[in-house]
Amino acid sequence: MTDTTDRTGPGTTLADLPLREDLRDEHPYGAPQLDVPVVLNVNENPYPVAPGIVADIAAAVAHAAAGLNRYPDREFLDLRADLAAFLRVESGAELAPEQVWAANGSNEVMLHVLQAFGGPGRRALSFAPTYSMYPEYARDTQTTWVVGQRTDAFTVDVEHARAMVREHRPSVVLLASPNNPTGTALPLATVEAVLDECSRLSQGAVVVVDEAYGEFRRSGTPSALELLPRHGNLAVSRTMSKAFSLAGARVGYLAASTAFVDALRIVRLPYHLSAVTQATARAALRHSEELLSTVGELRTRRDETVRWLRDVGFEVADSDANFVLFGRFADRHAVWQGLLERGVLIRETGPAGWLRVSIGTADEMQQFRTALQEVVSQ
Amino acid sequence: MTDTTDRTGPGTTLADLPLREDLRDEHPYGAPQLDVPVVLNVNENPYPVAPGIVADIAAAVAHAAAGLNRYPDREFLDLRADLAAFLRVESGAELAPEQVWAANGSNEVMLHVLQAFGGPGRRALSFAPTYSMYPEYARDTQTTWVVGQRTDAFTVDVEHARAMVREHRPSVVLLASPNNPTGTALPLATVEAVLDECSRLSQGAVVVVDEAYGEFRRSGTPSALELLPRHGNLAVSRTMSKAFSLAGARVGYLAASTAFVDALRIVRLPYHLSAVTQATARAALRHSEELLSTVGELRTRRDETVRWLRDVGFEVADSDANFVLFGRFADRHAVWQGLLERGVLIRETGPAGWLRVSIGTADEMQQFRTALQEVVSQ
Repeated sequence: MTDTTDRTGPGTTLADLPLREDLRDEHPYGAPQLDVPVVLNVNENPYPVAPGIVADIAAAVAHAAAGLNRYPDREFLDLRADLAAFLRVESGAELAPEQVWAANGSNEVMLHVLQAFGGPGRRALSFAPTYSMYPEYARDTQTTWVVGQRTDAFTVDVEHARAMVREHRPSVVLLASPNNPTGTALPLATVEAVLDECSRLSQGAVVVVDEAYGEFRRSGTPSALELLPRHGNLAVSRTMSKAFSLAGARVGYLAASTAFVDALRIVRLPYHLSAVTQATARAALRHSEELLSTVGELRTRRDETVRWLRDVGFEVADSDANFVLFGRFADRHAVWQGLLERGVLIRETGPAGWLRVSIGTADEMQQFRTALQEVVSQ
Repeated sequence: MTDTTDRTGPGTTLADLPLREDLRDEHPYGAPQLDVPVVLNVNENPYPVAPGIVADIAAAVAHAAAGLNRYPDREFLDLRADLAAFLRVESGAELAPEQVWAANGSNEVMLHVLQAFGGPGRRALSFAPTYSMYPEYARDTQTTWVVGQRTDAFTVDVEHARAMVREHRPSVVLLASPNNPTGTALPLATVEAVLDECSRLSQGAVVVVDEAYGEFRRSGTPSALELLPRHGNLAVSRTMSKAFSLAGARVGYLAASTAFVDALRIVRLPYHLSAVTQATARAALRHSEELLSTVGELRTRRDETVRWLRDVGFEVADSDANFVLFGRFADRHAVWQGLLERGVLIRETGPAGWLRVSIGTADEMQQFRTALQEVVSQ
């Protein structure tokens, strides 16, 4: 029996393993998972799924579990039809099931997009500050990450966007709307200008409007779903994690042309969506009206939070999401820490000097306001 | 409003989109999903999860569903502890929870391995005929796929393996044991020889022994889990899809050094494993003894199937798995088609002239034998 002298089991360190060089200084992505009374850091919906819906999910999973010895439906067309039906109700979009794609969270949907349309020698473009996972999708697919800048009001300037597309010739453009962590929704004219500029690129480009927080948009703010009938290279991504109160179920999805979805089908791992996940999502979608009944209340509380923060003197970004970016602080970490010491966990993210708070229950927001006033009065 | 003249929604084809060039001729991976009476094509366990276990899974999911508005535990250490406990019982392996990793099927586990240790300019090595997803993991991570050849008996020749490692300097070696689609288990001495040769590479390499079918190995066939205490660059992957009757739940996992797992944590998407999946897997693991009670019967029937196929004159590969590779046929597609016309779906895969049949129930195997005799007697 041969034995190795190096790299034996218990003594092995990461330095002993052939980790890709560009990952050497990387850490697992994620906000701190801390056990505190008021959790307002990852834009979860504070309202649990109602008992009647929990029971329906459990029954659906029990039904699926009786057949778990078999692989799930690789194409999950029933779930895709249910998601299309939901988008018809929510935004008036007319979509065939084949125009919808889903995966284990929007994360995996975006990975599929970058795997299909990105890759070595290609570029993905977005505009900062924006969702901090985007560069990770690019890294994970060896796509070069190119980033333009949002304006002082955190929107995207049309001429800057056009210039960035012309200069960098991206194959993928990611536009978060409402944007995380700023809450900013983009006018459809901006999305259309990017689409127009992309159509002038000889190799073409796909544009993904990330509407993870779309259901929280203020009245009058349109969804980019409206643009799908005219743009086969556009996708609009959504998630069940936020408005649906289903962060734990990990179901993200997007709507696009059938051809766009067919590209994602090539790179998806077979059977990526379990029978249990499909059953859970479909059961929840049967109750979408009840699940989304918290959205109106959260939007109202979001607007109240914006007003209160402004009233007490903070700078606050307009928000179409279930969170609010506010500042500015000379030492934002001290404020974050002070809140944490008072049992309120928010997120230290976004541009320097700003902090992000998710919209929780009325009681949680009261505790946030009290703690914040204590911290800043010190 | 700007309008594009090209690539409008409904008329868009894949040719209009900037799909990566190396994906242009690719198709979504997967066996035909056909509705026939006897399904013996994807190595599923023919026995459904028992009603009592289904009820426990449903109860566990109901408990998890009450908290689905929150993100799941990113580190899922409870599930990892349960998997470590199972491997202790199954193979005597002593593993800390931090030495176990899981994802949505072994597919995703392997993707994590290739994302961490493969990539552009690097090579992954295996020995054909072997699992047909391996080159897809390499493709999806831009890793160069290098393939040696198995012997006529479908095992891996030690000197050939050493020579391939020396010549190609892979950063990842994938060794399926029992191998799919041949059923061949590798001696531990072969795995150790590969590990030894890899330890001579200046940049190092990781070795994954894919034991997706490990629970079906014949008595006396060891598990590569035995080698983990001495090799920090070794991983042994397993799945709940086969012996556990949980293909629909999509839970694959691996055991390795903590450092190896830490590398995978860097590339995993955050919250990749849903609370529902974690609850389902943990509920099933509480019943692992009952779930795996079908393994003995399936092994016996596998051995009977091998004997019967040899008795009636076929060439048959020795199998340590829940399937059997047999042949050889001048026109294997005609035989596959003939079986399908008689309601028996097997898999047209592996080297030319061979076919693979999964081990089903006693009745299903009787129908397979009857159909096969009809087809070959024509």
